[in-house]
Amino acid sequence: MSKEITKIEFEGFKYIEGGVCDAQGFKANGLYCGIKDPHAAPDGNESPIDNMKNDLCLVTSDTMCNAAAVFTQNKVKGAPVTVSQKNLKATGGKAQAFILNSKNANTCNADGEQKAFRMCELVADKMNIKPEQVLVAQTGVIGQVFPIEPVERKFDELFAGLGYDKNLKAATAIMTTDTVKKEVAVEFTLGGKTCHLGGMGKGSGMIHPNMATTLNVVTTDCAVSAEMIQKALNENVKITYNCLSVDGDQSTNDTLAVMANGLAGNAEITAEGEDFEVFKKALYIVMMNITKMLAKDGEGATKLLECSVSGAKDQDTAIVIAKSVICSPLFKCAMFGADANWGRVLCAIGYADAEFDINKVDVKLCSKAGEVHVCENGAGVEFSEEIAKKVLLEDEIQIIVSVGDGSGTATAYGCDLTYDYVKINGDYRS
Amino acid sequence: MSKEITKIEFEGFKYIEGGVCDAQGFKANGLYCGIKDPHAAPDGNESPIDNMKNDLCLVTSDTMCNAAAVFTQNKVKGAPVTVSQKNLKATGGKAQAFILNSKNANTCNADGEQKAFRMCELVADKMNIKPEQVLVAQTGVIGQVFPIEPVERKFDELFAGLGYDKNLKAATAIMTTDTVKKEVAVEFTLGGKTCHLGGMGKGSGMIHPNMATTLNVVTTDCAVSAEMIQKALNENVKITYNCLSVDGDQSTNDTLAVMANGLAGNAEITAEGEDFEVFKKALYIVMMNITKMLAKDGEGATKLLECSVSGAKDQDTAIVIAKSVICSPLFKCAMFGADANWGRVLCAIGYADAEFDINKVDVKLCSKAGEVHVCENGAGVEFSEEIAKKVLLEDEIQIIVSVGDGSGTATAYGCDLTYDYVKINGDYRS
Repeated sequence: MSKEITKIEFEGFKYIEGGVCDAQGFKANGLYCGIKDPHAAPDGNESPIDNMKNDLCLVTSDTMCNAAAVFTQNKVKGAPVTVSQKNLKATGGKAQAFILNSKNANTCNADGEQKAFRMCELVADKMNIKPEQVLVAQTGVIGQVFPIEPVERKFDELFAGLGYDKNLKAATAIMTTDTVKKEVAVEFTLGGKTCHLGGMGKGSGMIHPNMATTLNVVTTDCAVSAEMIQKALNENVKITYNCLSVDGDQSTNDTLAVMANGLAGNAEITAEGEDFEVFKKALYIVMMNITKMLAKDGEGATKLLECSVSGAKDQDTAIVIAKSVICSPLFKCAMFGADANWGRVLCAIGYADAEFDINKVDVKLCSKAGEVHVCENGAGVEFSEEIAKKVLLEDEIQIIVSVGDGSGTATAYGCDLTYDYVKINGDYRS
Repeated sequence: MSKEITKIEFEGFKYIEGGVCDAQGFKANGLYCGIKDPHAAPDGNESPIDNMKNDLCLVTSDTMCNAAAVFTQNKVKGAPVTVSQKNLKATGGKAQAFILNSKNANTCNADGEQKAFRMCELVADKMNIKPEQVLVAQTGVIGQVFPIEPVERKFDELFAGLGYDKNLKAATAIMTTDTVKKEVAVEFTLGGKTCHLGGMGKGSGMIHPNMATTLNVVTTDCAVSAEMIQKALNENVKITYNCLSVDGDQSTNDTLAVMANGLAGNAEITAEGEDFEVFKKALYIVMMNITKMLAKDGEGATKLLECSVSGAKDQDTAIVIAKSVICSPLFKCAMFGADANWGRVLCAIGYADAEFDINKVDVKLCSKAGEVHVCENGAGVEFSEEIAKKVLLEDEIQIIVSVGDGSGTATAYGCDLTYDYVKINGDYRS
């Protein structure tokens, strides 16, 4: 199976290769500093052995950016979340750099905030900006003391290596149990000016709706105020990252920050209107695609699952139903086994905390191999098991649910539950 | 590992061997009728091959019983749930028999209610009672037409074979993916009269809090009104079955019914008071033990997990926190791997929808091999990984969480998440 997702095209937006370095004036870099094993850090910036990937990453803009972010809603918040929140508040939505690491979440540590802020200071000193103008995010094991020394030791090298084409170094340095890097970028036009918006994400387990997101950096050269970035972000996160579930576990460190340096030269977006809609759509395209990438690369996943619900009384109801299906472990196992056990879809729809008439529920299972209609008016319809098997052996499955005549629609994203999920998480720390 | 649970002793109550036949005047039987493969039913009442276990079961009382039940809260309700609810309503809480089958849930079928009621009629005809005085429960695949013919064909044999010592036949006939039968019975005294209360349960997957329960039958010779049975049931289900999660999936057919025939001769319990408390406690002991049996025999499980929360502001808060830990797939995988990854406990506590101070959280991992204190005031404390491994290699693990100075306590029950859960559910239908 492929971990690459099928991208849907949108008129007026062109996918371009790359991620955080596609917008003008953004540099990035990533290297191995040895956070997991601070005493055995090698000199080179590559992993000494295969399973020790790069663990430190920096994204900078040549000029100050307007910035906004969404964070985890877990009561246990990683120290970097608290520091980034404070920094954004202190600057009123300004940031010029974002430093991230994998291998240690710096969460539930007494000295966590101090060390997360120290990472901001390292960046600020080099760039001659305030530490509050730097964002920080960290991911990895919770509850282990974070070693700042490897970061300090390798920081000069990380900074010296920044480049306008190093998005790949950055995107791989934030990976934990991810098996593929996650980057998307689009090009679009605003008032005759060509704009770019691109992002990278990481995350594979501990991923669940109702949180901000996983670790994600989005950069754009579009000129847009921090307030309008936040507005676009909040609207998009509800229908992308918050509709994603790999395993129902809500992380403590999730962060998605958008940095906009305005170098495209468009008239700054400071209010709702046509330009804002274009920007919001560009952000949606990048966020939706990274959401699908996160789902398809869910820990141990062999399939991307998309449940689209229509006919609900409103969007919120559609979201609740779609998520309920995507989160069902039994349904996820059935998809792993390519088993058209649609009763499990009905069961999950039935325990969704939403208002609808179960006797109007209609379910189809689709993929590029075809479609099978399995349930009509809440009861089973006969279908060919042979065709169903063909449909479900594909690696991208759509579950199309209709629940009535309402106008509410939504899509939730997830993946199958496999042996490998258990394997990966049965012994994550060692 | 053993699937047997360790039973806690309670003063004034004595565990006795058996289940639904221990109370005076209750008979039971179970046999194979061929619900899954109606055209290949053998003549004998035993499975023709190993994996085709008995599938039809009957429990009767010599005299009419007061009865009460709790059912699934899923919007998709199996036909037997609807029929049993109607029957209990029609009789005002009377029942003299309970018929159950496995292998087909008779859910999402157009003719489901008609067939479920037909099962009640078969029993009523033989016993010379009304069909409404019979309860029915069914479990198995959802959305496949239920074949009534095998039940009709083998019913005479089932009825003729009823016996006061056939609890084992009954307990095995309701098993689906269960690997062990689940029975508990206690003896106690009320007003000088010896009373018995015993039950059987089944369920392994599709088990989650906030539902009534799995399929369960409890019988007692204690004299108690239907209203007081319902009251005791509601109070107990909240702290037993509703604190149980195997996989987060809420079934469509869950049923727990209590039948009390009064043959012990105690003064009928019709109001709260000392006698009611004794009856409620007996019911609690049976329900709590079956809950633990269900958890330990969760699909693919190798360990029983019990999360006890204390210091919460009230019981509801403690329940929410305990359930959140027990439901975390990542924590469940870590327990499978005997990995003391306590950060995942903190993470799950953190996303619990409850009010408490995360900085007062204290966590210990315990088993009969010892205990490790892993978290104090929301931050990690050093512990011996060697001792932790020993503790977690046991097959019954307690996660002891304190969240403050409140008086709210609760325990939630679950199991680890293993390769076998995925295997069992990747191809359940075939």
